[in-house]
Amino acid sequence: MADTDFHAQLAHYSALVRPVMLDAVPTSGASRYLYEPVRDFLGQHGKGLRPALCIATCKAFGGDEKAALPTAAALELLHNALLVHDDIEDESLERRGQPTLHEKYGVPIALNIGDAMNALVLRVLMRNLPGLGPSLSWKIVEEFNHLLLESLEGQALELGWIRDNAYDVNEGDYLTMILKKTCWYSFIHPCRLGALIAGQQHLERFHPFAFLAGAAFQIQDDVLNLNSRAGGYGKESCGDLWEGKRTLILARAFERMSSAERGRFQRVLAKPRSGRLARDVDWMRSVLDQNGSIRYAQQVAAELARRARDEFDQAYASAQEGPDKRFLRQFADFMVERTT
Amino acid sequence: MADTDFHAQLAHYSALVRPVMLDAVPTSGASRYLYEPVRDFLGQHGKGLRPALCIATCKAFGGDEKAALPTAAALELLHNALLVHDDIEDESLERRGQPTLHEKYGVPIALNIGDAMNALVLRVLMRNLPGLGPSLSWKIVEEFNHLLLESLEGQALELGWIRDNAYDVNEGDYLTMILKKTCWYSFIHPCRLGALIAGQQHLERFHPFAFLAGAAFQIQDDVLNLNSRAGGYGKESCGDLWEGKRTLILARAFERMSSAERGRFQRVLAKPRSGRLARDVDWMRSVLDQNGSIRYAQQVAAELARRARDEFDQAYASAQEGPDKRFLRQFADFMVERTT
Repeated sequence: MADTDFHAQLAHYSALVRPVMLDAVPTSGASRYLYEPVRDFLGQHGKGLRPALCIATCKAFGGDEKAALPTAAALELLHNALLVHDDIEDESLERRGQPTLHEKYGVPIALNIGDAMNALVLRVLMRNLPGLGPSLSWKIVEEFNHLLLESLEGQALELGWIRDNAYDVNEGDYLTMILKKTCWYSFIHPCRLGALIAGQQHLERFHPFAFLAGAAFQIQDDVLNLNSRAGGYGKESCGDLWEGKRTLILARAFERMSSAERGRFQRVLAKPRSGRLARDVDWMRSVLDQNGSIRYAQQVAAELARRARDEFDQAYASAQEGPDKRFLRQFADFMVERTT
Repeated sequence: MADTDFHAQLAHYSALVRPVMLDAVPTSGASRYLYEPVRDFLGQHGKGLRPALCIATCKAFGGDEKAALPTAAALELLHNALLVHDDIEDESLERRGQPTLHEKYGVPIALNIGDAMNALVLRVLMRNLPGLGPSLSWKIVEEFNHLLLESLEGQALELGWIRDNAYDVNEGDYLTMILKKTCWYSFIHPCRLGALIAGQQHLERFHPFAFLAGAAFQIQDDVLNLNSRAGGYGKESCGDLWEGKRTLILARAFERMSSAERGRFQRVLAKPRSGRLARDVDWMRSVLDQNGSIRYAQQVAAELARRARDEFDQAYASAQEGPDKRFLRQFADFMVERTT
């Protein structure tokens, strides 16, 4: 059970990383339509899960907190860069309770802002050189290159399914997609990187724990997307249905709905986002609820989190007891208990 | 005067780089909507000016051709990545005589493809490590980080002027913008990088030559955009006017047009691209022609190319005579003589 200590610890890691991240943003150079919006966006901070995983793992294996900060800050910055482009790709309206950057500035400027945030990731990683030396600093860049390409490959799968209006996406396809889109960059590599900086080898030991926790996180995210009213969650309600995303919930529902329902789903999802009506989205939401698909996804997320907890003990067997390991142990629970 | 040797040499450099670039593209992983389009796009190759500058400079200073190839390939790959996002930002319809990627696949998938090409740049640069060692490899990454941020800052300036429907952009503003948007990544850094790999110091010696050649190139590009009929140039005719771009031609024309003409320009450019009519664009084109602004830009480009030739002798004073230096000497002429 994640407790108040968990949230205090998460806020602590986040506070360590924020100045390192903001310090990489130039103060001049096309500021009005570039670096000022970058600062604003980074200021509406998210939960900071990725840097927390990285720092906590580093410290739990006896590594130095300071040594992990540039890498942790780069993870958070990359996450923000991906969000800006994701929001354009998904035509999302809200992010962290604010209009998305492309709603504020238009697609061209928002796209360019995302590119700049992505470029600043490398700028932060270059800060590793004096402290970690060239060999370890290069290894970290290689880890980033892998996590980014995996994420873009996962995004290509998801966007391809929407473009093809695919109806044959099954649970296995969905898990492959979220492994690529979410788990590598948000969970697996943050653990790997923290351990790497602490001088650990055999980094693949973190994969089962981090994949399971990440999958639980993403499925819970899909559930929250449908179950939250506007405001609390920071994104528009039922955004995934507006966007036609192929989630575990939708895959499950497709197997269980009547052929009449399936036909109406296909007609609604064949339209572009702007052609869908609020009453279509409300109706889809009610079908997913009534045939038990949302509840099913919640159960899957809970089961994945339980298995992640079991894997935790393996992955972190040689880590020191203390606040960092305690935080990491509570991590899997937080994946499914969170409401935002 | 650029001769047939120049074009043969350009094709030679390009052929060296292409396999290195394509070798970095994975063969699996969301291929249909990611790496297959990347391969297709890279297959419709451009002129290859950036890798040519890099390799020729490296060799002219006694460096090894092979040592420059990953860096040269990374420059060409980054250029392609920027084109994909630029085309989305500009709502361009054609590139290299084909529909742009967002016309083929939609904005979401094209945006993601551009992100992947950008990520692959680092993958190519990681190939430098065995040959060049960690210290020089890091320096090259730092050069790339600078050239990319400059380009994104220049893009932010240009997009901001369009968004603000700005009419006070003067010749100096335009030159600052193209220094950032084009010259650093396309001319200055390719020379710097080639010399760096050849073991040279004092890399700022290339800045005057490369800035002047780059500015001549960009202004000639603006002229070709207005003077070419569809087909020959590979982009739609008068695309810059459809997109509302603030070019030297437009800045000059604004100073010289009647207040009635200025009023109509402002009304037309205040509309979104989709609201402009072909007859508005034709009319704008004819005003720019008749008040001598296109001719003026051609004269400026020729003068910048002449000054670039003068600066060449300074920058490359200690370089060895031979086919590479001969190629570089002809470079400035090619900037203004080219028709595509």
